[in-house]
Amino acid sequence: MAHVVKIVTSNPGKWEELYTMLSSRGLDCIWIRERVRELQSEDLAEIVLASGIEAYEKWGGGVLLEDSGLFVTALGGFPGPYSAYVFRTIGVKGLLKLMEGVQDREAWFKSAICYISPDGSQSIFTGEVKGILAAEPRGTGGFGFDPIFIPAEGDGRTFAQMTVGEKNLYSHRARAVQKLLKHLGLTG
Amino acid sequence: MAHVVKIVTSNPGKWEELYTMLSSRGLDCIWIRERVRELQSEDLAEIVLASGIEAYEKWGGGVLLEDSGLFVTALGGFPGPYSAYVFRTIGVKGLLKLMEGVQDREAWFKSAICYISPDGSQSIFTGEVKGILAAEPRGTGGFGFDPIFIPAEGDGRTFAQMTVGEKNLYSHRARAVQKLLKHLGLTG
Repeated sequence: MAHVVKIVTSNPGKWEELYTMLSSRGLDCIWIRERVRELQSEDLAEIVLASGIEAYEKWGGGVLLEDSGLFVTALGGFPGPYSAYVFRTIGVKGLLKLMEGVQDREAWFKSAICYISPDGSQSIFTGEVKGILAAEPRGTGGFGFDPIFIPAEGDGRTFAQMTVGEKNLYSHRARAVQKLLKHLGLTG
Repeated sequence: MAHVVKIVTSNPGKWEELYTMLSSRGLDCIWIRERVRELQSEDLAEIVLASGIEAYEKWGGGVLLEDSGLFVTALGGFPGPYSAYVFRTIGVKGLLKLMEGVQDREAWFKSAICYISPDGSQSIFTGEVKGILAAEPRGTGGFGFDPIFIPAEGDGRTFAQMTVGEKNLYSHRARAVQKLLKHLGLTG
């Protein structure tokens, strides 16, 4: 059974990661390089579901949207769902400044995927990965706050120091994708 | 001609300011103490219009919604439309930490009001006020980042050191309200 997945994102890095994982399981992927309206919410699943419904109305069944954020424990979850905005304004430098003198450097990357099937049924899949914030940015891969995120299960490198394939072993986004693949009967 | 304005906000401070200004011009005000969904956008007018349309569908004509934010020039406009979230997470302390060692302390409070009349016509009114960020929080009035905002036209006090009436002489929100009152034929 051939699936076609319409990946809706304006972020080339996100497209690259999603495409790599989904196409390796035999899914045909289409890149709809557009922005969809996003809600303000502290719940990624709520945000991506509302955007998914708008995308389904525009582009029909098979749409896939992903939203993610970096949640820093000592900062009450900041920047959370507004990570892209915070990255564009105060950036990595600003986030590191907020962490100066803070002992607890725990952070979580979280991801939520909304997939709306050709028959219109809505599914949400989430994934997360625990890590710590690096003292200084390292690496040029990935996007957003990847240069300062060191996954707890890794070897001490930041997400930005990994290839797409390596990041996909650990990442929040990959974990959400795994659940989607299982839902589609494409694992094992 | 008697107007009834349905003010939709979950924020008691915002209700108080809006009620004080509107009722003094003879408008009957109703407080709908509810949250309405908000879009992610860097444009307050776009956010408040989308919320206004949802509010109109729920509560009918005469709804008024206001959205506002603190835009810090040296931080690329941060926290901007996400001021309430940033206040809840990193707070005044976090914002001051980001400003440590930064010479340019200019900031703007911006406001956008959406009013949808009984016949369904949509209007947007905006207001802004320039100021500087204080080195330390002062005062207990107002809400959000008011304790660190010193309006340029004032006497050196922060918004949080003023009464509601004093703040309404200078504020971004009051300037947006003035435009609404003019639109309703209630000035002069």
